[in-house]
Amino acid sequence: MQRLKHSDPDFETRFARLVDGRRESDEDVSRTVADIIARVRAHGDTALAEYTIRYDKFAPASEDDWQISAATCEAAYKALDGDVRDALQLAADRIRAYHEAQLPANRDYTDDVGVRLGATWRGVDAAGLYVPGGRAAYPSSMLMNAIPAKVAGVERLVVTTPTPKGEVNDLVLAAAHIAGVDEIWRVGGAQAVAALAYGTERIAPVDVVVGPGNAWVAEAKRQLYGVVGIDMVAGPSEILVIADGENDPDWIAADLLSQAEHDPTSQSILITDDANFAEQVEDRVDVQCAMLSTNRTARESWDANGALIVVEALEDALPLANRLAAEHVELAVADPEALMKGLRHAGSVFLGRHTPEAVGDYVAGPNHVLPTGRRARFASGLSVLDFMKRTSFIALDEKSLASIGPAAVTLAHLEGLPAHAKSVELRLK
Amino acid sequence: MQRLKHSDPDFETRFARLVDGRRESDEDVSRTVADIIARVRAHGDTALAEYTIRYDKFAPASEDDWQISAATCEAAYKALDGDVRDALQLAADRIRAYHEAQLPANRDYTDDVGVRLGATWRGVDAAGLYVPGGRAAYPSSMLMNAIPAKVAGVERLVVTTPTPKGEVNDLVLAAAHIAGVDEIWRVGGAQAVAALAYGTERIAPVDVVVGPGNAWVAEAKRQLYGVVGIDMVAGPSEILVIADGENDPDWIAADLLSQAEHDPTSQSILITDDANFAEQVEDRVDVQCAMLSTNRTARESWDANGALIVVEALEDALPLANRLAAEHVELAVADPEALMKGLRHAGSVFLGRHTPEAVGDYVAGPNHVLPTGRRARFASGLSVLDFMKRTSFIALDEKSLASIGPAAVTLAHLEGLPAHAKSVELRLK
Repeated sequence: MQRLKHSDPDFETRFARLVDGRRESDEDVSRTVADIIARVRAHGDTALAEYTIRYDKFAPASEDDWQISAATCEAAYKALDGDVRDALQLAADRIRAYHEAQLPANRDYTDDVGVRLGATWRGVDAAGLYVPGGRAAYPSSMLMNAIPAKVAGVERLVVTTPTPKGEVNDLVLAAAHIAGVDEIWRVGGAQAVAALAYGTERIAPVDVVVGPGNAWVAEAKRQLYGVVGIDMVAGPSEILVIADGENDPDWIAADLLSQAEHDPTSQSILITDDANFAEQVEDRVDVQCAMLSTNRTARESWDANGALIVVEALEDALPLANRLAAEHVELAVADPEALMKGLRHAGSVFLGRHTPEAVGDYVAGPNHVLPTGRRARFASGLSVLDFMKRTSFIALDEKSLASIGPAAVTLAHLEGLPAHAKSVELRLK
Repeated sequence: MQRLKHSDPDFETRFARLVDGRRESDEDVSRTVADIIARVRAHGDTALAEYTIRYDKFAPASEDDWQISAATCEAAYKALDGDVRDALQLAADRIRAYHEAQLPANRDYTDDVGVRLGATWRGVDAAGLYVPGGRAAYPSSMLMNAIPAKVAGVERLVVTTPTPKGEVNDLVLAAAHIAGVDEIWRVGGAQAVAALAYGTERIAPVDVVVGPGNAWVAEAKRQLYGVVGIDMVAGPSEILVIADGENDPDWIAADLLSQAEHDPTSQSILITDDANFAEQVEDRVDVQCAMLSTNRTARESWDANGALIVVEALEDALPLANRLAAEHVELAVADPEALMKGLRHAGSVFLGRHTPEAVGDYVAGPNHVLPTGRRARFASGLSVLDFMKRTSFIALDEKSLASIGPAAVTLAHLEGLPAHAKSVELRLK
């Protein structure tokens, strides 16, 4: 963990290192992934079977074994404890409500020269969702990725997930049941992404692939971008807490640790205008961390990537926050609204002392799939828009074509495209 | 050009070939582009200068020579003929109006348990626009790419364009003046995209890179996706005309040729329910083509990629059109509205007999940067959204946290994330 003081002479150097520091792996897997994609494209299910044995040590015993059935998911749902089922259902309902309100409006209007213009939004026909195997598979992620697709109107929502040595994650299956997933295939890695993009004999191709994954999965999505649509590449998670000295240091320490416990590459940063408060938080982090079952991960993350930054005034936090462009930003201050106005880059903002980031991970409603690694400068959280596309339309009649057509003829000639000009001229006669 | 009849026994085989046929180059430039990006990242302007001499045969004579000034663009604008200036201005005004109406609404509401939720859209700080050199540089493309960025609120809009042997395109500069471009740098290729993404000593980095380019530029954008945001990879242009026999065959022939004249890889397809009409169009294509100054390109495109498809009834065109998912779809029929309802995948639709696709290229208002190569299945035309990002926000108070917080605690424990649970539990006490 680093301690920075805004007034220190070396502040800029150290802060810049914090902003530019890459916590993402640079692993060059592009050649291997290109090979996997080419093989799946050429050999379909045969290639999938080979990779699934090699990487997941799993060989389906029968044709049915390639999929996890809707009945299995329903059974997993029914086997949940009541309070767990209620919590997942509350989360699903709230996520659905938020994303339904996010649906974009179609446009259709006629302008002052009589040209009818507009745009129609539609869900894609089919979407694929990559769900990692093992520790990284969370039921909450299933809800956050699958529900927006269904709200967008996607008719066929396909999950691929590795089942190492045949092992499945019942919580994730229960969440798939709640979200209304249509197919689940027991394949993972770059080969699963290739199968989703190009299709195989068993798996029909999809139009969009989303979901988190390791370096191979991320690289496969990148290479297949254009064959299908993809969501933003996700990196290690991060939180920036901007807090004044009036907070309970235990609360803020827990918030920092809630990010740190995800992964050793996670990052937790506190900016405060109160140096004493920073010390108290540091102390509470150490105490709480020792008691966590996730102690090892949280400790490693906090030691390697954590930072406490002391500024003279809370407003001084804003330019720093905008440079960090963090995935999650908590504003634990008396007037969070005022600070938010000046915050240009953030994935999601948590306002006030009673909004711990973790409520956003589960039940608040907005998506928890958010831009990481300074990408909030240009990227947004996952939304229904990732599963939709827009078709614009134009309708002219004789009169409106007479009004704007001649300008099109002029520009077409200017650009050396006579057939463009001709197609308008013929109709102007 | 191919003639297909829906009722022919080999129709499906031949149509599938049309749908799956790739007209895009498979050129493997990834290694070269990776090297260029690495060198620009490491050596900045020195690398840019080397590549600019090597590929563009251009060595700036002075520091000023790296840029094209606002004064130069203004002079180019003032030197335009009156009718050209008016046409460009009309186009710019109509593009601006359409894209202003496209700006997304912010959200801010409090739900029934007292949780305040919402999302704020903001333009990115800086955007880069790649403008090809030579033949492919069109003033209309400058307007279509630059105006949405400015409407989105982008403060710094940076153009990079190669100037082979120092040559500049005055029409493009005039359009840059109209669109309000802030900087123009005389660099091109993958090295320009790398400079935009990572910045150099002279060029400050941007957040989003858009614009068409050759295979090197497209590959550079793909490799830098995630460092910056990018627009969809664009392939060869295409038009699908669905027309009944009541059209003037000359009009439809001109529409098909307006696409064919772009590039030998362009594709023009007519689907009609009238076999005689198809023959008439074929005849008129040949006659008109012979008279075009773009004859060679149009001929090559039509011969290699054109198709005339005869169906029994117009409704039969819809499933075919949805499989083609074309960039441009003209509905030259009596009731275009009815057909549009069944058209699920298209970049842009042109309704009725008086809406030639070329009006959309220039003056209608909607963007002419549209998804190609079947990507309308999942992608949309360029819009203000490509230059904006959304920040979600959440605000709870004691009462609303008491309402939904316990479910978050349950789910956090379920996922083995005790610090997540703790951050909520502490506030529930």
